[in-house]
Order: sequence, then structure tokens, then C-alpha cells
Amino acid sequence: MFDFTDRDLKEEHDIRIIGAPFDGTVSFRPGARFGPAAIRDASDGVETYSPYLDADLETVHYADAGDLELPMGNTEAVLAIIRETVDECLNDDVIPFLLGGEHLVTLPAVEAVFEKYPELVVVQLDAHADQRDDYLGIELSHACVMRRVSELVGDENIRQLGIRSGTQREYELMKGFGTLTTFRDDDLDEMVAWIGDRPVYLTIDLDVFDPACFPGTGTPEPGGIDWWTFNRFIKAMMECDIVALDAVELAPQLDTSGCSSVLAAKAVREMLLAVSPIA
Amino acid sequence: MFDFTDRDLKEEHDIRIIGAPFDGTVSFRPGARFGPAAIRDASDGVETYSPYLDADLETVHYADAGDLELPMGNTEAVLAIIRETVDECLNDDVIPFLLGGEHLVTLPAVEAVFEKYPELVVVQLDAHADQRDDYLGIELSHACVMRRVSELVGDENIRQLGIRSGTQREYELMKGFGTLTTFRDDDLDEMVAWIGDRPVYLTIDLDVFDPACFPGTGTPEPGGIDWWTFNRFIKAMMECDIVALDAVELAPQLDTSGCSSVLAAKAVREMLLAVSPIA
Amino acid sequence: MFDFTDRDLKEEHDIRIIGAPFDGTVSFRPGARFGPAAIRDASDGVETYSPYLDADLETVHYADAGDLELPMGNTEAVLAIIRETVDECLNDDVIPFLLGGEHLVTLPAVEAVFEKYPELVVVQLDAHADQRDDYLGIELSHACVMRRVSELVGDENIRQLGIRSGTQREYELMKGFGTLTTFRDDDLDEMVAWIGDRPVYLTIDLDVFDPACFPGTGTPEPGGIDWWTFNRFIKAMMECDIVALDAVELAPQLDTSGCSSVLAAKAVREMLLAVSPIA
Amino acid sequence: MFDFTDRDLKEEHDIRIIGAPFDGTVSFRPGARFGPAAIRDASDGVETYSPYLDADLETVHYADAGDLELPMGNTEAVLAIIRETVDECLNDDVIPFLLGGEHLVTLPAVEAVFEKYPELVVVQLDAHADQRDDYLGIELSHACVMRRVSELVGDENIRQLGIRSGTQREYELMKGFGTLTTFRDDDLDEMVAWIGDRPVYLTIDLDVFDPACFPGTGTPEPGGIDWWTFNRFIKAMMECDIVALDAVELAPQLDTSGCSSVLAAKAVREMLLAVSPIA
Amino acid sequence: MFDFTDRDLKEEHDIRIIGAPFDGTVSFRPGARFGPAAIRDASDGVETYSPYLDADLETVHYADAGDLELPMGNTEAVLAIIRETVDECLNDDVIPFLLGGEHLVTLPAVEAVFEKYPELVVVQLDAHADQRDDYLGIELSHACVMRRVSELVGDENIRQLGIRSGTQREYELMKGFGTLTTFRDDDLDEMVAWIGDRPVYLTIDLDVFDPACFPGTGTPEPGGIDWWTFNRFIKAMMECDIVALDAVELAPQLDTSGCSSVLAAKAVREMLLAVSPIA
Amino acid sequence: MFDFTDRDLKEEHDIRIIGAPFDGTVSFRPGARFGPAAIRDASDGVETYSPYLDADLETVHYADAGDLELPMGNTEAVLAIIRETVDECLNDDVIPFLLGGEHLVTLPAVEAVFEKYPELVVVQLDAHADQRDDYLGIELSHACVMRRVSELVGDENIRQLGIRSGTQREYELMKGFGTLTTFRDDDLDEMVAWIGDRPVYLTIDLDVFDPACFPGTGTPEPGGIDWWTFNRFIKAMMECDIVALDAVELAPQLDTSGCSSVLAAKAVREMLLAVSPIA
Repeated sequence: MFDFTDRDLKEEHDIRIIGAPFDGTVSFRPGARFGPAAIRDASDGVETYSPYLDADLETVHYADAGDLELPMGNTEAVLAIIRETVDECLNDDVIPFLLGGEHLVTLPAVEAVFEKYPELVVVQLDAHADQRDDYLGIELSHACVMRRVSELVGDENIRQLGIRSGTQREYELMKGFGTLTTFRDDDLDEMVAWIGDRPVYLTIDLDVFDPACFPGTGTPEPGGIDWWTFNRFIKAMMECDIVALDAVELAPQLDTSGCSSVLAAKAVREMLLAVSPIA
Repeated sequence: MFDFTDRDLKEEHDIRIIGAPFDGTVSFRPGARFGPAAIRDASDGVETYSPYLDADLETVHYADAGDLELPMGNTEAVLAIIRETVDECLNDDVIPFLLGGEHLVTLPAVEAVFEKYPELVVVQLDAHADQRDDYLGIELSHACVMRRVSELVGDENIRQLGIRSGTQREYELMKGFGTLTTFRDDDLDEMVAWIGDRPVYLTIDLDVFDPACFPGTGTPEPGGIDWWTFNRFIKAMMECDIVALDAVELAPQLDTSGCSSVLAAKAVREMLLAVSPIA
Repeated sequence: MFDFTDRDLKEEHDIRIIGAPFDGTVSFRPGARFGPAAIRDASDGVETYSPYLDADLETVHYADAGDLELPMGNTEAVLAIIRETVDECLNDDVIPFLLGGEHLVTLPAVEAVFEKYPELVVVQLDAHADQRDDYLGIELSHACVMRRVSELVGDENIRQLGIRSGTQREYELMKGFGTLTTFRDDDLDEMVAWIGDRPVYLTIDLDVFDPACFPGTGTPEPGGIDWWTFNRFIKAMMECDIVALDAVELAPQLDTSGCSSVLAAKAVREMLLAVSPIA
Repeated sequence: MFDFTDRDLKEEHDIRIIGAPFDGTVSFRPGARFGPAAIRDASDGVETYSPYLDADLETVHYADAGDLELPMGNTEAVLAIIRETVDECLNDDVIPFLLGGEHLVTLPAVEAVFEKYPELVVVQLDAHADQRDDYLGIELSHACVMRRVSELVGDENIRQLGIRSGTQREYELMKGFGTLTTFRDDDLDEMVAWIGDRPVYLTIDLDVFDPACFPGTGTPEPGGIDWWTFNRFIKAMMECDIVALDAVELAPQLDTSGCSSVLAAKAVREMLLAVSPIA
Repeated sequence: MFDFTDRDLKEEHDIRIIGAPFDGTVSFRPGARFGPAAIRDASDGVETYSPYLDADLETVHYADAGDLELPMGNTEAVLAIIRETVDECLNDDVIPFLLGGEHLVTLPAVEAVFEKYPELVVVQLDAHADQRDDYLGIELSHACVMRRVSELVGDENIRQLGIRSGTQREYELMKGFGTLTTFRDDDLDEMVAWIGDRPVYLTIDLDVFDPACFPGTGTPEPGGIDWWTFNRFIKAMMECDIVALDAVELAPQLDTSGCSSVLAAKAVREMLLAVSPIA
Repeated sequence: MFDFTDRDLKEEHDIRIIGAPFDGTVSFRPGARFGPAAIRDASDGVETYSPYLDADLETVHYADAGDLELPMGNTEAVLAIIRETVDECLNDDVIPFLLGGEHLVTLPAVEAVFEKYPELVVVQLDAHADQRDDYLGIELSHACVMRRVSELVGDENIRQLGIRSGTQREYELMKGFGTLTTFRDDDLDEMVAWIGDRPVYLTIDLDVFDPACFPGTGTPEPGGIDWWTFNRFIKAMMECDIVALDAVELAPQLDTSGCSSVLAAKAVREMLLAVSPIA
């Protein structure tokens, strides 16, 4: 079974896992703050070996830095702490892997990574566009995070997969910029070719999965992907140079069966294997 | 986000939503009485825009009449109130859209609609045949509702999709009358052609969905449809003249993740868009 | 509706259902002990008629022997009781159908059956290989049950379907012996041909289903099968001579919607129909 | 551990337990239909010996007749079945002990008992007065049951304990007739003296307990009694001639801890011991 | 049954109920945002008549202004909206009655009220001191709210009841200022005398109740009060001039039995009756 | 907030906390294996300062050794591991503080302690006698643990408080030996005097609490103690020389509100303060 806490930051490592248990801008149902702990707990019951990738976590050099202590109620202070932490990763030359928390935690991470990699490409898996200009007047909101990211790295450097919810305005925007793509094999191939050897920030809002597979999230949307589609996506991405990544929006208390946490832990395993220079 | 309670019966409207929170004949697990409230709550988190139909609820003239006050324990009085309410809709020239409650609420609605539209066709999505003559001696039961409807409008004017549970006798009956059809594209086309320009009562027992997508229902049956199949069905039905409709059997307390309520709310959105003369 | 307790051991019967509510070696999340009772409860809401097989349980001669009283905390005593009970079935010339409980209950059943049928073939549906030599030093563990079974009947007499979790060592083992196969139609045909007229022990760890369909199990694994795949499998197996069978690892309290129990009950119905000499 | 199903109606018995799983007139939260089954399940974990009464169920001659099959949706048919069943008990000279179900099941039982014992006294433990004339126009409702009982046996032959919820009108009525009393020792003594050797129907709406002890009920009311008060009451009642009794309104699915079911099972044990001619 | 939504702000009223669904600074378990809606839902099942106070809500002129729309993630904007809303109440000469949300919502309300009533006394029922200077560097936190209130109105103008959790430093502070008192009758009398005819802001953190009665709160603390103690407190306070009040920290999703919401609704009824000039 | 994991075994310490997550002999409802982790999680929300004892955990030298890895399914191996671990504590001259797990974990701990302290007194808080000779033939069962302990240290060296469930035989035994006592102040005084300066093993089966306070346990029994009674008990025991202790039978998943875990964590805090030579 794999277990984050077996590893230690003092060891040399290539990938650093960082819990970012923040859900302060969630408007509908909070609880993503419990995500990182639930993924760690569920990882106890998940094997280190992936039959999908025929690879084993035992060979990956990752470390778990535990959870950040984030001051709920002060969004800007929270984002500053995350940014600083990701900066440290980059200075230490390790790949930061954030576990959310809500999707807004992606923003400070992209800011830090973009500074180091100005040619950055962002690949977003998500049910929601997250492209609003503001939400109830708040610009730093989980509903606006990809708009902020787009303003930073440029709409032309973003690809969005799995989107199935947004305002008419958001869809116009996304269609205008051509950011939307699908999980069809040819579209995945096209995306990988388009990325080329540019550095990639991979952000996976786990609500990209169908609520049948992943009910434990604040804003579930019917019509999502299943495990096999995710596997095809991960295999495709193994050819890319992922320099930072995150998995967000698990709200484990909403799924009392624990299956959402198990899926998240197993997705994290695949992501670690996909990113690892060794695997 | 869309929210029924933004609308008001005083405004002019084409479609009237009516909550019918009755589950008094349910033999297995009650709770469909909480369905209409749960759909309203969940609608708060659902966008008005449908990327599937590229249409927006903002352009639809619907109103929410709230929930009927139904005297639990007196089935006949309950059915009389529903019938009267649907009659009023028809008199006001608006399309009634019932939110159940159990499937029996369909009966008085069909009675009212059939009186106005004697050439009525009934399209039923359901996991269960609901074609028993009686259940424990009771003829006004959710397990018999489609038998009663069939007796009224004629077996030859009914189409049933998604059925996967019934007695041997019920299956003989349905096969004899040829009421069963499937969600295959050619079968949908055939059904739409068969309907032609006849008026349609569309009744969707939400347990037609697979329990994976929709666990929040009293009598779940493995082997149901997914969201994409439902979308194809809705698109096909947009060519028909739906004069009344319902969505029944959400029992929200059985799905603590809330995903069933969200799916129901989103299905209601698609149904509103499909029925709307404007959409 | 079908209901185990309508039947009586005094009647003549071909198949005997035996509850084995043991989960004493489960390392992650216990609760499979509640499985047999949950299947019985859920069977109340399931029709006796299967539209998939066009067959009715009313014509099957099965009996329910109720639950064994098993001394939690003494694994060897538990296994001895199960073995003895299965022996009695075989002496009475009826097919034993165990309801688990955890997967370890399969071991004593196979032991008893193998003694009577030395040419036995074992067909395993499962998410997990269960091929470890030991688990935390324990050889009689749910994580090792198929290794014990393999040692008994020979690796060459086993087929495993649905496996998607194991150690690298377990996968090497399974690939070496060629025990792994799939649910593709041609693979099912191949397997049935390979079995020929040899007697079969069919063990179904219900976690072979995707957690979307079946969240109520101790160690869920994304990427499992759906109801339709199970149906194809059951139809294929109807040509084989199943002499004993089990369905294990339902942990009903982990799925508060009750859908897992309903699926299990419906799967048991199909299995009864598939095994019955009459159906 | 005590277990209803160990007993058999064929044995001679003094007390007959009858499940009445009806909740068809419940207006707020249904689920009392699951009460009898939950009490039976919980009784598995409850000892037969009561240290409070220093008495053992092993010495009591009771039998469990199982659950009545009641046609949900037809209140009058349900009440007729219950009445008939209680009549049979009285004809067989055994004490009927109903397990609800909602409180309305008390009405047909009192009707049957009153016919045999016209000098009947009714003692009601309850949080709610249940003295409305009608509820939403329905006279046969759980909210009106004690009004119906009062009309039958006479307000002067009723004592109500634990009441803490009602309309102003109901309180005026109860104060006018002097039916209200308390669990204070002197009030209990006074009540027992007032009863004398008249036959008693004891109806215990389990929501008389504080929701802290008994959250599993449809309409919880803060301010109820605890286990020790119930024990003092039971001891006081042992001097009376209880000829029929019931325990109603356990809705077990509302208390996922199962504690409400355990309390109900233990209360039933004490009631059996209190009523038994031997104890 | 009583139902907030029957009332309308257009009617004349003495007390205005305002939902403040904010839980943005909660560090442990969020969900108090769902409190106001849950109290409204539960009020459906609560009688308007209080047998404790022999008074009926039918005679009280209160109105429900619904929930404020609060921008999660921007604490200062949230507090500004609440303050403005309470200001409006005071301008309209009605008593504001806030339903939280977390305890921090009390701060802007006290600010507004204190400006109008500089001689204000604050009475706090709570399990927690809430007297920290800051929490993780945040001064506007639910854990600091009473420190902020104390700084505003003066420690000498505060009384705290039910406190059973705090740091050693907080206890020193509270003991130094003599703010702590108890629910003993003589202490209640002393407090009422000390208040005299000064205006009172009454803030009830519902976690003052024992978790047995009120498990539905973010930070439960064993050792709290029961319903009867609360009743004695309310009766004592009826002699005081309460000019504003709140009830906070119900997190209904943490108590799936719904009993916490019912207790909160019933407490709100008693508070309305206690405050009403008529009652 | 207090947090076990802040401490480190390398530091010098007086008390060592050891998680013993075993529930393998539980016959009714498992889950006590999740107890230690739940206590640690809940401790995050509990202050280090106890206003009851006016003492602070900051001044106590305790360490948390984490959870033992126990091979489920092999009771004897589990007990041997626990015994060995407690032996180590005693060799290191620190007080072992076990967190269960089921009550059987007390047996090996008492064995180890008794060897070092042959004049040992055992004080048991519990709802259940646990004095059966065997349970379904198993002598090493949670239902027999105190019989085994009694055989070891002698019935005359045991005191049992809070017992309210057992067989008639168990009560005869306990009365015969005079092991039963109560929480009345005079009885506590008498017990403390009787103990004198003998070393004490304190075992607290948390189901001694009333299910209202502590629903999260496998076999709840109405009629238990509340927090205040526990506090009086702890204060009384501070005069005794406790050389080892445990807190067992929290099954956190049975109480979804989390209140049972919070109470357990707070009880552990009080026990640490009571035992500490400094406090």
C-alpha cells in the first residue's frame, strides 16, 4: 500500500506533495479543505503498483511536505503562503504537486511557475469553465480562477478538457479563444503535439469525473469522464514536460462511501508515475 | 445559477412548475415527498445556460407555483387536488410541469390533460413497468400507475423506455401491446415519427437513470441510462409537441452526496428548454 | 418481489444459500459481515422475474439456510464451520451458494468442493488479485485467499476476470500462469471452451463492479465493470457446470443509498437463474 | 442476547408482539415503517436480563407474530387489519403489544381493547398532545390519534405524560380535562392510585424521550425524559393491570448511530418484563 | 406549525429576522452557512404555541428578511453588508435578530447597535470564550469575536454564560474582568439586576448546548446545558430590554437526524416570544 | 489546540500514548479500529487547557507512539504485540496509555503491568460487565475481557463503575465479589480509600457514557453517565497512583456528527492531566 507519510523531506526527491486545505471562496458547499487529509488516508489502501502504466511508486522520488497552515478568512494571506511554498519548490528544483482545497489554490501556483517558465502552457481538466470575471464582486474566487490564470499566461496558452458547465458568456469566450478540446484520442494527440516541448502546468479539478465515479465534490455535474478516459489522458500526457501540477476539489465528507477519496488517491498515484522522470 | 423562486406566478409564463410532494403509496422506501424542495435547492448551483442545447433558461417563460399542500394519508383527496391544479394550468393555457413525489401523481395529471387532448400520447421513461393491476389490493399505487394510464389513454398510445424491472405478466402485457422501445437513435427516430404532431405527455421517472448516476430513489435498478443517453432523448423530443410533463421519484435523503438532486435539477433545466416554444 | 425467507430447508431444493457473515481478516474497512442480511433485505424490492434471462425465480428450487453463527476472533474455527457446512451441502447433493462476508470464506468452500471434484476449475471475478503469499504475516487473509486456492487446485485451473489491483509480484505471477482474462466476448467464449464440461467453482467478489455501481465495499477500485458486462458474463457461464458459487465483500453500511445491496441482490437472482438446472 | 424471532406463535404465550409498519399519515418525516424491523435487529445486542428490574426475559412467555402486511396508501384498510389482529389476540387471551409505525396505529388497537374492556384507562407517554380535531382536513392522522381515542374512551379516562408540544387549543383542552400529569414520584403514585384495578392500555410514543437519547423519530422535541425517568415510570406501572400496549414512532433511518433502535429495544424489554404476569 | 416565510417585510413588524449564512473564518469544520435555511425548514414542524411561556407566535409581529447574499472569501465585505443591514433595522425601529452563520457575524451587529445604544450590555451564551487576540494572525475570526466586542463595548459590560473551553490566557482575562457567570438561579437573578434597564445585545452561540442535545455544530464541547436550563435563562431575560439578538453556529449537515435544527428553531421561537413587547 | 503528533518519542516523557486499532473479536458492530485515529484528529479542535482541572497539557510530558500494526484475523498475535509494547513502556519507566480498539486490548496490557506490579488494582468504567466465561466458545473476546483480568489479578482487586448490562450470571458474580460500585461522591471516596497507595490500572470503556453523549460505540447502552460525572470521577482518581491506563471502544464512524470523537479526545486530555506527576 502506498503512504505519503513514509517519505521525508530530508530525502532527496523530484516531486513534492503539498496539501493546500483552503475552501474559503466556495459559494455552494464547502469541505474541500478536508481533501488532502482524505487522499492521504485513502492512499493506505491503494497499491504502489499501477497495472495501467506497469510502473511502481517505489521507484519514484517524491516527498510529502504535509499541509500548509492557512488562515481561513483571509484569502490574500492564504494565496501568498501558497505562492511562497511553490516558489521554494522551484528554488529546490523539485516539481510542486498541490493537493487542494478549492480550485483557487491553482492561481498562486501558476503565478510562481509562470515566473520561472514564461513559455508555460496550462492544461485544465474540469467540469466548470471557471472563466467568470468575478463572482458576487469577488475576483479571487474558485469560479474565476481560470480567468485569472488566462489573463496571466494568455488565453492562447491554455487547453480545457471536460468542461460542461458555464455561462453563455464563458462559452463564447472559450470558443473564441479555442481553448476547449476533448478526450478523443485524436484530440489528445493534437494537444500533445501543440504542447511540444513547452513546460506544462497540469491542473485537475477532480469534478471533471462523472459524479457517479466521484460524488465527493462541492459542485457535481452529470456527464463527466470515467476512470478509463482519465487513464488515456494520463498516458498521453506522459510525453509532455509537466513542471507543476495539482489535483483539487475533493470534498470527502460529501461521499460517505469513501470512494471519491480512493479515486483521488489512485489518480494521484497515476499522476506521480506520469510526472516522474524515472517512470 | 438558476433558481425557481426568482419567478412569480403573476408574470406571464408558458410553463408552470408545480411541486407534488406525495409519497403515500410507496411500499419500499419513502422520501419522494422531499423531491421538489431538493430540486429547488440544487437548482441554485446549476447554470441557466445549457451547452448541450446551446440555450439559456433566461429566455424561457416559466413560473414556479411552489408545492401543493397534500393531505398525507388520504390518497384520493391528494389526487383530486393534483387534478384540479393541472386543470387550472390548462385553463390558463400554460404547460403543467409536475415535480414528484411518487409516480402516482402522474395519474391525475394525465386525466386532466387527456380530457383536453383526447388524442394524447404518453411517453414514459422508467426503470419499472408500473403496469400491475393492483399492488396488495390497492389500485391507486405507484406500482400500478401506468396500468391506470393505459386504461385511460389506450395501450396503443403509450411508449415506454428504459424499463428493466417487472413481473413476467407485465412483460407479456407490454410486449403484446408493443409499448416497449429503446434509446437507440433509430428507435428514437421511429418514436418521434410515430408521435407525429399528436400532443405528448412526457413522464420521467428519474429511476430510469442508472443508480450510479442517480442513487437517490426509492427502488433503484442497476442497468439504467446515463446523462448522455438522456441528452439524446431530450434532443429527439424537441421535435414533439409536449403539452404536459413531469419528473418524479427523486428521494433526495437517500443520496447524501446530493448528486441525485443536482442531476434532477439539471434534467429539469433541459426539459424546460426542450418544451419551451422559444428554445 | 423475491424473498429468501419464503423458502424452507425442509422443501426439496437444488441450491442452498448460506450466509457467512465473517470479516475478521479485513485490514482496511470492516462491515462485510452485514452483507448477507443486507442482500436478504434488498431482495424484498427485487422482482423474481429477470427480463435479461427471461426466467423467473419462482421456477428455481433454492432454499435459504440463513446465516452461520461464526465466532469472530477465531479465524480457524470460522473456516472450519464453513467447510463443514459446505460439506453437508455436497452430501445432500445440493449446490452451495455462499453469501459473504469477506473473500476468505471462499477458501474452506473450495476445499470442500475440490475434495469432491478434483478436476475443479475456479473462476474468479474480482478487482484484486488476492494472490499475496501472506499479509502482515497472516496466510489466512482476504488478501491471500486466491493464492491459497491456487495452491490447492493448481494455478493452471484458475481464471481471473476484472483484476485491476495488485502488487508487481502478483501481476508477474498471474501473467506467468496465464490466469488473467477479460470480459470481451471472444475471451468469454475462449474461457467457456477451455472449461468444457469440467465442474466450476464461481467466486464473485462484488468489488469487481465499478465503485460507481457498487460503492458499498471495503476496498473499492475505480475502473470496474458495469451491470451489462456482468450480464454478458452470466449468460456465457450458463453453458458451464457450476457446482458451487459465492458472492462476497458487500459492506452495505458503506453505501447509505442502499444501491449496492440492491445490485448484490439482483446479481444473486441472476446467479440463481444461471445455475439452476431448470432455468 | 434477546431476539424476538427465537419465539414461535405455536408455543403458548401471554404476550404477542405485532409489527405494524405503517407511516402513511406522517406529514413531516416518514420512516416509522422501519421501526419494528429495527427493534428486532437491535434486540440481538441487548441482554435478556434487566438489572433495573432484576428479571430476565427468559422467564417471560411472549411470542413475536412478525410484521403485518399493510397496504400503504389506504389508511382505512390498514386500520381494519390492525384492529382485526388485536381482536385475535384478545380472543386468544394474550396481551397485544404493537410495535409502530406511526402513532395512528394505536387507534384501532384501543378500539378493539375498549370493546372488551369498557372500563379501560389509557396512559399515553408522548411529546405531542395528538389532540387535534383534524390535520389538513384528515381526521385519521397521527396528529389526531389521541383526540379519536379520547372521544372513544372518554377524556376522563386518559392520562398524558411528557407532553411538551401542542396548539394553544390542545393545551386548553388537556388542562380542562385534567389529563396532563408528570413523572414526579408523587404524580406517578397518584396516577397509579387513580387507575386502581382498572385495565390499562399503555401507549408509548417513543418521542417522549429527549432527542438527545432518541434522535430517531419524525418529530423530535427538545425537553424530553431520559432513561432513568422511564425506568421509574415502568416500575410504577408494574402495579397496574396492563391489558394491551404499544411502542411507536421509532424512525430508525434518522439516527445513523443506531442508538435510538437500541433504546427502543431495551424499552421493549422493560415493558415486556413489566407486563408479564410472572416478572 | 410556524413558518418564517409566511411573513413579509411589507407588513409592520417589531422584530426582523435576517439570515447571515457566513462561515468563512471557521478553522475546524465549516457548514454554519447552512444554518438559517435549516432553521427555516425545521420551523415547519414546530408549533407556534410555547407551553413553557404560555404564549403564541401568532401574536408576535416579526418578519423574515431572508438571507443576505454574502461574498464568501472577502470577510470585510461580508461584515460591511451585515453592519449595513443591522443599521437599516435600527433606522426602521425594529429589533434585528440575526441567524448565523458563524459567530463572527455578531461583531458588525454589535458595532451597529452600540452606535445607537452606547450604554449597551452584551450577554453571551457560548461554549467557547472567543476571547483570543488573534487566530493564526487573523483578528477577524470566529475565535476572536468576543475580544473584538469587548474592546468595543468594554469588558465591564459583558456577561458570559456556559463557557467551558478556552486557553489559559483567555480564562485569566475573563476571571480578571469578572465576565463569567452561571445558569444558577441566583446568578441569573444577579445578572438581571446588574443589567437593570440598560439595553441588551443577546448573542447565543448554540454550541452552549450540550452536544447530546445539539451535535450539529462545528466545535462541540461536552458539558453544556440542556433545554430546561435554556428555558430558565430565557424566562429570566424576559425582564430585560433586549434591543438586538442573534443565534449562531448551527451547522445542520453535521447532525443527520435533524434534531439540532429542530432545537435551534424551537430556541428561536422562545427568543422571539421573550423579546416581543407583546408576549 | 492539542495535537498528539507534536510530540516525539525521542523527547523524554512520562506517559506514552499507544494506538491499538484492533476490533477483531467484536460480535455486533465493528469499527473500534478507527478509534485512535479519530481521537488524534479530534484533538486538533480541543484546547490544551482544562478549566475543570485548571491545568494545561503544555506542562505534561507525554509522547505519542502512533498506532501499532496489528494483524487482523490472528487474535493471539495481536495480543502478543500489545503485551510486548506495554512491556517496553514499563522497562522505559513510562506510563502506558492505550487507545483502543476494542476492550480486549486491555488484557495483554494488564498482564504486562501485573507482572511488574503484583499488588495491582484494576478500576473499570464500562456499560458492560465483560465477565462472561466465553462468548460463542471464544475466551479471548471483548465480552470476556474482565473475566480474564479478574482471573489474573483476583476479583477482590477490581472495582467496576457504570455497569448496566450483563447476564444474570454475571451480576451474581459481580455482586458476590462486591466489585460493583457507583459514581456517588461517597462511593468514590470509599473506593479511593480502599485503593490507598496501591498501583492502579484504569480502564475506561467509553461506552460508560450515555449514548446521548457518546453514540459512537459498538454496543450503546441507555442509562450511562454524563460529562460532569466523569469529571468528578477523574478528580477523585487524581489522588491515586495510576501506573497504566486505557480508553477503548470509540467506533467513530457510528457517530457522523463527530461528537463522540471530540468527547473521547477531551476525556483523554483530562486523563493525561490526572495521571501526570506534574499536573
